[in-house]
Amino acid sequence: MAKLSAEDRLDIIEIIARYSRCIDEPRWDDLPGLFAPDARVDCGPLGQFAGSEGIGNFVAVLRSVGQMMRHYTTNVTIEGDSERARAHVYVLALVGPRPGALQITTGFYEDELVKRDGRWLFSQRRVLLDMPG
Amino acid sequence: MAKLSAEDRLDIIEIIARYSRCIDEPRWDDLPGLFAPDARVDCGPLGQFAGSEGIGNFVAVLRSVGQMMRHYTTNVTIEGDSERARAHVYVLALVGPRPGALQITTGFYEDELVKRDGRWLFSQRRVLLDMPG
Amino acid sequence: MAKLSAEDRLDIIEIIARYSRCIDEPRWDDLPGLFAPDARVDCGPLGQFAGSEGIGNFVAVLRSVGQMMRHYTTNVTIEGDSERARAHVYVLALVGPRPGALQITTGFYEDELVKRDGRWLFSQRRVLLDMPG
Repeated sequence: MAKLSAEDRLDIIEIIARYSRCIDEPRWDDLPGLFAPDARVDCGPLGQFAGSEGIGNFVAVLRSVGQMMRHYTTNVTIEGDSERARAHVYVLALVGPRPGALQITTGFYEDELVKRDGRWLFSQRRVLLDMPG
Repeated sequence: MAKLSAEDRLDIIEIIARYSRCIDEPRWDDLPGLFAPDARVDCGPLGQFAGSEGIGNFVAVLRSVGQMMRHYTTNVTIEGDSERARAHVYVLALVGPRPGALQITTGFYEDELVKRDGRWLFSQRRVLLDMPG
Repeated sequence: MAKLSAEDRLDIIEIIARYSRCIDEPRWDDLPGLFAPDARVDCGPLGQFAGSEGIGNFVAVLRSVGQMMRHYTTNVTIEGDSERARAHVYVLALVGPRPGALQITTGFYEDELVKRDGRWLFSQRRVLLDMPG
């Protein structure tokens, strides 16, 4: 198995950014294409989702939030090889009804990714937000 | 046309960081050097600027803000080749009179870049801040 | 001296992220391993530390803070070669007793790094937080 190249690492960092763009701009129709067909999403209080139909439901749940969202991702650490990788990501989520009225939430993404046809996709994403209370 | 290399992608991410450093530390004298001679800046409510003289005016406008500024950039996605590229960037701007009194504003940069003499430069930057109201 | 490769730059960005993970998750036992044996840390009001024993004291001081911490790093700019490098980093620190009650502080890290046995380590870290007052 070849080792994770600089291109692989940058591609993984970029798909993590593209996920944020899909839910923030938003571009709901582009979101499912970031996941492998057998992917799983564990979104804590928002639920767990698996497979193409599950990802479709996940997108529907996110859409129904009906808030302005901005998800800043940093501190990406990656381990893996040229075919499979795990990434740990910091996310700073700003969510609210409008600019100037956004609540800040810290958290992490724990991701598993696979390369299919030369393209990295999420095979699993766990969303771990630091919720008050 | 050669494809965008890992070095190109890292260089582009780094010039985006250097722009923030120029306006935050600040290093006003270094800011024009990040732009191609025919560059354009669309800074929304702060105005539009083009060419070397325009960039000089842009710097003067930024200087006149007279506030402490911190511009955190993340979620950089890049498309292009070894000569020209487009980048989409998240910016989290913290601006105010002093530490502990900074207002947070979310936004994006939409950038076009060109490689001149082996160095990436902004040929266009659009500043899209999420302004309240 | 070989030039700083794309792998070097990504490795440096990643050790900067790993430092944040060590103090935020926290993983105190993993923190000393990010520093060269002769490393120095200048942490402003929290003190200055040098060498293996000093880094041990630094970790003890951080542990004693007893707060939830999240350190988001972005805008990394790096200069150097395949053996030694300097990095400038933006840090957005969110610190407080619990989620929903975190204070935001801006700041920079000014880092010097060395490659030992193929692995980048901090030889110096200066923490420059923008403190109110």
